[in-house]
Amino acid sequence: MQLTGKNYIAGATSAEGAETFFSVDPRSKQTAEPAFHNATNAEVDRAVEAAVPAFQEMRNYSSSRIADFLDEVAAQIEGIGGILLDTADRETGLGLPRLTGERARTTGQFRAFAALLRDGAYLRPIINSEEPGQPSIRQMQFPVGPVAIFAASNFPFAFAVAGGDTASALAAGCPVVVKAHPGHPATSELFARAFGAAVERQGFPAGTFSMLQGNGHDVGQWLVAHEGIEAVGFTGSLRGGRAIYDAAARRPRPIPVYAEMGSVNPVVITQGALASRADDIADGLVGSITMGTGQFCTNPGFILLQESAASQDFIAAVTAKMQAAPAGVLLNEAIAVGLESAVEQTKANPEISILTGGEAVAESDYFCFSNTVMQTTASAIRADDRLQVEHFGPVTLFVVCDDADDLRATVDALEGNLTSTIHAEAEELDDIGDLLHQLREKAGRVIWNGFPTGVAVVQAMQHGGPYPATTAPGTTSVGMNAIYRFMRPIAFQNVPDPLLPDPLKDGNPLGIMRLVDGVNTVEAL
Amino acid sequence: MQLTGKNYIAGATSAEGAETFFSVDPRSKQTAEPAFHNATNAEVDRAVEAAVPAFQEMRNYSSSRIADFLDEVAAQIEGIGGILLDTADRETGLGLPRLTGERARTTGQFRAFAALLRDGAYLRPIINSEEPGQPSIRQMQFPVGPVAIFAASNFPFAFAVAGGDTASALAAGCPVVVKAHPGHPATSELFARAFGAAVERQGFPAGTFSMLQGNGHDVGQWLVAHEGIEAVGFTGSLRGGRAIYDAAARRPRPIPVYAEMGSVNPVVITQGALASRADDIADGLVGSITMGTGQFCTNPGFILLQESAASQDFIAAVTAKMQAAPAGVLLNEAIAVGLESAVEQTKANPEISILTGGEAVAESDYFCFSNTVMQTTASAIRADDRLQVEHFGPVTLFVVCDDADDLRATVDALEGNLTSTIHAEAEELDDIGDLLHQLREKAGRVIWNGFPTGVAVVQAMQHGGPYPATTAPGTTSVGMNAIYRFMRPIAFQNVPDPLLPDPLKDGNPLGIMRLVDGVNTVEAL
Repeated sequence: MQLTGKNYIAGATSAEGAETFFSVDPRSKQTAEPAFHNATNAEVDRAVEAAVPAFQEMRNYSSSRIADFLDEVAAQIEGIGGILLDTADRETGLGLPRLTGERARTTGQFRAFAALLRDGAYLRPIINSEEPGQPSIRQMQFPVGPVAIFAASNFPFAFAVAGGDTASALAAGCPVVVKAHPGHPATSELFARAFGAAVERQGFPAGTFSMLQGNGHDVGQWLVAHEGIEAVGFTGSLRGGRAIYDAAARRPRPIPVYAEMGSVNPVVITQGALASRADDIADGLVGSITMGTGQFCTNPGFILLQESAASQDFIAAVTAKMQAAPAGVLLNEAIAVGLESAVEQTKANPEISILTGGEAVAESDYFCFSNTVMQTTASAIRADDRLQVEHFGPVTLFVVCDDADDLRATVDALEGNLTSTIHAEAEELDDIGDLLHQLREKAGRVIWNGFPTGVAVVQAMQHGGPYPATTAPGTTSVGMNAIYRFMRPIAFQNVPDPLLPDPLKDGNPLGIMRLVDGVNTVEAL
Repeated sequence: MQLTGKNYIAGATSAEGAETFFSVDPRSKQTAEPAFHNATNAEVDRAVEAAVPAFQEMRNYSSSRIADFLDEVAAQIEGIGGILLDTADRETGLGLPRLTGERARTTGQFRAFAALLRDGAYLRPIINSEEPGQPSIRQMQFPVGPVAIFAASNFPFAFAVAGGDTASALAAGCPVVVKAHPGHPATSELFARAFGAAVERQGFPAGTFSMLQGNGHDVGQWLVAHEGIEAVGFTGSLRGGRAIYDAAARRPRPIPVYAEMGSVNPVVITQGALASRADDIADGLVGSITMGTGQFCTNPGFILLQESAASQDFIAAVTAKMQAAPAGVLLNEAIAVGLESAVEQTKANPEISILTGGEAVAESDYFCFSNTVMQTTASAIRADDRLQVEHFGPVTLFVVCDDADDLRATVDALEGNLTSTIHAEAEELDDIGDLLHQLREKAGRVIWNGFPTGVAVVQAMQHGGPYPATTAPGTTSVGMNAIYRFMRPIAFQNVPDPLLPDPLKDGNPLGIMRLVDGVNTVEAL
């Protein structure tokens, strides 16, 4: 398969822009052909202007027709074959085992949404029958319209062109325009072709899917500002997410932005936990911090414990293990530069001690940063919010608290996170309840005696959290409920049966679960 | 009961501000004592700073404890007695029959949320059991924290200090700080006292409820900008709602704003409908346009029909009925001034003809505006978005379309609305389907052969819609689902049973419906 380096707009390739960039192998820092063309403003317009009429067609498609399309996408992704893995590995350095697993998760997401759509209950049909003085009212969920998706760098499959945001928006019935991540443009082009083939085979409108390349901020800003876009999904940095959020809020007609922007994922370790299993926790933590070279949004970047000899031993043990672990490959130059800059900012605070690392690896021939452990005091954290910055890489910060009150005050001062974790022992349960409530307020997921990396794709999962972890804490970007970011309820009052969508018709022709006059039932009216 | 004119902050009255304003009787334009004190920035801070620790207590309250509180609020509102009706009537001119009904709706909302809480399933508990390679994950909905509520002028009970936004936020478990509407400050003070009594009797923290007076923009801006506020509910004008939305988006930590800002509520009438029941439709429309002196967010402000002799007869009939109807009382001077200004702006378009009214009633001793019917062309609507402005009063605009294509193109150009309506006949069904889909995209509720005023409080109701009708089209401000604006899911991973909230414990001690490993059940694990 010959890569073109072009944008993929409603089934056709396009390269009208003069600005180009190249794919870079993070293991060698070498660029590879072809040149990828930044989309122009006119190309962004064309992508959205194809999505708008596509939506006018798609909004009348049945759930099962969309389900067939999602299954086709999964099959087309598999059909790309090994070149997808090799290309992504060359562009990200993540390695074939990880990428093979991530591909399975990616196709699995499309198939899971297809199953959800075939079941039909996700449409949440609610019917109130006509009564004296009250009309018949029936509501269900409908797609919102064309959606802009911003791909992440750290999951080139599962949170990128064919990632969870794209899958959930398409499942909702929304056309998507994806802004590809410049860290893996070749991988993105392969996915775009798979979508193109799926669109053609399933007879979907060409504007169902477009993919735009761009290594600056313009393409994203044009896309979010376009009148035809109804919602935005974003996975990436706080800075990038906030810029998109601000642009959407400034529109004459503002639209919702569902941005997942990472976090420091605080971990509290009690003295009881240290006494009974310090070694296990140290091993687990170092594994979690260095996994994927620390480039996970749920990476544990903040470890809170009380001052004691056991705590100092624990910090020393973690530091030694971090020092001994090999420096992993970072995804790309932007990640490496951003990480260095974030650590520099943190180091500038006089209350920060560097226990190991803290610097870029000198003269490395691959993108990397030394495994880093820092330490500070609880009062320093409370005095300077900038210490809560995410260090996106193999970096963690120990926060040593004077006592239980100091710990509690520091937890209260935490910003929003995707996760919060506590390691404690059964005999400490009576003392822990309040702390757990506190940690709950700071995150979307609370973990007991575990590690935050690894996000199970199950119904009960919540991948979200208060700002700055996300811009929409009431929603999730992992799991089936992610679909509701791109749907909205519409009610029909006294509308004749032939004009109602099938899920709301008297006879329940699809046989789906509905809430009828307060009772869940699959029966006809 | 002696009115104090003071703010009501966490159980105490406060009047530190030097700026004051008065309650005005819209029927006489006469002011009444006492002077009401605009809240100061320090008073706003105090209200929020009392709400924050109140939330730290309330977040651990059971649903049934909150339900008892909601029932107490309803009882305390009833306990105010007839003075509530008389005071509101004097401040709004809405009349005792309407206000009596609205009071029943208001207490009914509190009791309906209490019932929802006692049932418990609203918490949406989802449990995935531990399996090899997958931890136990359990999630449910939790309150977001202190909420700011902006009261509306046109529903002094049902969408004001004790309105649906306040009821749903308290039901969620969130303390509220209400910015009262300056159109009915005395009514607001009576409600504040009822909340104070309920807080005291139920032993809730004093910061559960505060009410701030203010007749300018400062109080609202200070409130939304306060770091302690987690979400905002607003009902009012587009201009006011957008200002609040913008302020929330500009915060260092942005928060969601659920603003319901009214709309023009387009009504399409087919030639078939005119042929069979023009008189009935005209009567219904005029009733809907003039009900409550047109001051409903679902008031039909835009009537689209095709050019024909029947259409001209219909427009003439509606015009005659509007002319014959008495000019009603407007709520207050701001409404009267705003309506005059909106109509002036519309009249300035040369494509607008005034068929009747279009002016303030000269030298009236009460706030009013003449019943107004205007007419324009579909192409004029498409050429100037400003013609889609809401005229908040007894005003409607006929949009005459050349033919079906002209009508369809105009519907496509409509902005977002709370409702859209179509009047048609059964024999036209085959031609109507696509038009209905189009109208659906423009609204939160689609009405067949009815009128948009009157919002049934049932489960299937959707009161919302695309911007500018609201800032959050995925949510509703009427009905039980309104509670989810003020809640967010939190997941617990491997957390020991004693530390889990009751709704997630193995034994299901509350006996509520839960989704356990994909199955809805009330059984224990």
